[in-house]
Amino acid sequence: MAQVIESRKPANGGDPEASYVARLLHKGPDAFLKKIGEEATEVVMAAKDATHGGSARALVGEVADLWFHCMIALAHYGLQPADVVAELERREGLSGLEEKALRKARAREAGED
Amino acid sequence: MAQVIESRKPANGGDPEASYVARLLHKGPDAFLKKIGEEATEVVMAAKDATHGGSARALVGEVADLWFHCMIALAHYGLQPADVVAELERREGLSGLEEKALRKARAREAGED
Amino acid sequence: MAQVIESRKPANGGDPEASYVARLLHKGPDAFLKKIGEEATEVVMAAKDATHGGSARALVGEVADLWFHCMIALAHYGLQPADVVAELERREGLSGLEEKALRKARAREAGED
Amino acid sequence: MAQVIESRKPANGGDPEASYVARLLHKGPDAFLKKIGEEATEVVMAAKDATHGGSARALVGEVADLWFHCMIALAHYGLQPADVVAELERREGLSGLEEKALRKARAREAGED
Repeated sequence: MAQVIESRKPANGGDPEASYVARLLHKGPDAFLKKIGEEATEVVMAAKDATHGGSARALVGEVADLWFHCMIALAHYGLQPADVVAELERREGLSGLEEKALRKARAREAGED
Repeated sequence: MAQVIESRKPANGGDPEASYVARLLHKGPDAFLKKIGEEATEVVMAAKDATHGGSARALVGEVADLWFHCMIALAHYGLQPADVVAELERREGLSGLEEKALRKARAREAGED
Repeated sequence: MAQVIESRKPANGGDPEASYVARLLHKGPDAFLKKIGEEATEVVMAAKDATHGGSARALVGEVADLWFHCMIALAHYGLQPADVVAELERREGLSGLEEKALRKARAREAGED
Repeated sequence: MAQVIESRKPANGGDPEASYVARLLHKGPDAFLKKIGEEATEVVMAAKDATHGGSARALVGEVADLWFHCMIALAHYGLQPADVVAELERREGLSGLEEKALRKARAREAGED
């Protein structure tokens, strides 16, 4: 999918009249960044519905929408989803990383009492 | 990483005193959903900084944070990142899908003039 | 403005074919909640543009959009902007309140180092 | 409250060691913009809880948090809540404005079928 998005860039001949991705990339950052905010909200709403007894399947579609628009943003800035996956793997590989996040979370919670 | 998150669920013995992920899962949906909203905002801010001349690398870390907290949400509702990837591949495979999204986007834009 | 919004409620005869507010209230919470997420993102984007040398005036319009959609949400749940203003005044009147927020913020920051 | 926030600006002697608002203003835009994204998400979560049978009162506190952090952002950029209120009144006074928003919304919906 990253390749498809890449091919939709204006510099690669993506046609904003023929492709949704090309159109967002052509319109520029504010267009796809606004979508990231909107899709993140839809993830939260779908999750709340699931918590209150709704189907969790809808959440898959909303997370897919969110990640898809993130991939468009990455492409615009010359980045790849693979960079994000590498970053996630790097973090997982760092022993003690979760412990650091935990210490932070505990301090934050101490601040939220 | 999905396996690590899975192992952190309260039902699987995840210890909220020893793991950041276990702690978020233990606290329940509002804790990780709030993080999704916060991390999406940080993605937008990092992208705007990149647009205005900053480094695009910071965006990788912010997208990683966002996707990571989405993975925690998926795990809570019994879902996997693989479900999201499958959904993205399904969409990519549907011919005419981008054309449909494009028609929608054009109609929306007609409404935003 | 709160009165205008109130008059747009379906129960008060608001016509979704004749009024934007009536239409959002008629469609239900997900319609206006999604807008709150989108408008909050637009506030952040306008603020970043202002930080990077753009006009701060655009921020006024974006905050107005955000507050406007919050007012629609309040109306849907039988609440008024006056309830929010009263809450803000109540907080301001509480001596020591800002000190409490400050202690929390410091603890959070200790957790973010 | 706008006056209190104004007095917390670094240029006006606001002490980041003694005031939560002064601290946010001292840390700069990313600190309070991140809070706007987070508080908007909390508004959405509280509204979803109210939709699913919870108390709507919690929504008042979350909208107050959101508006409060917007007021901090406005102050940072030399703006006032009064500017936002004036903008809302200006819109209300424009006859035909809601009709325009309605036409847009209808076009968007045509695009979302």
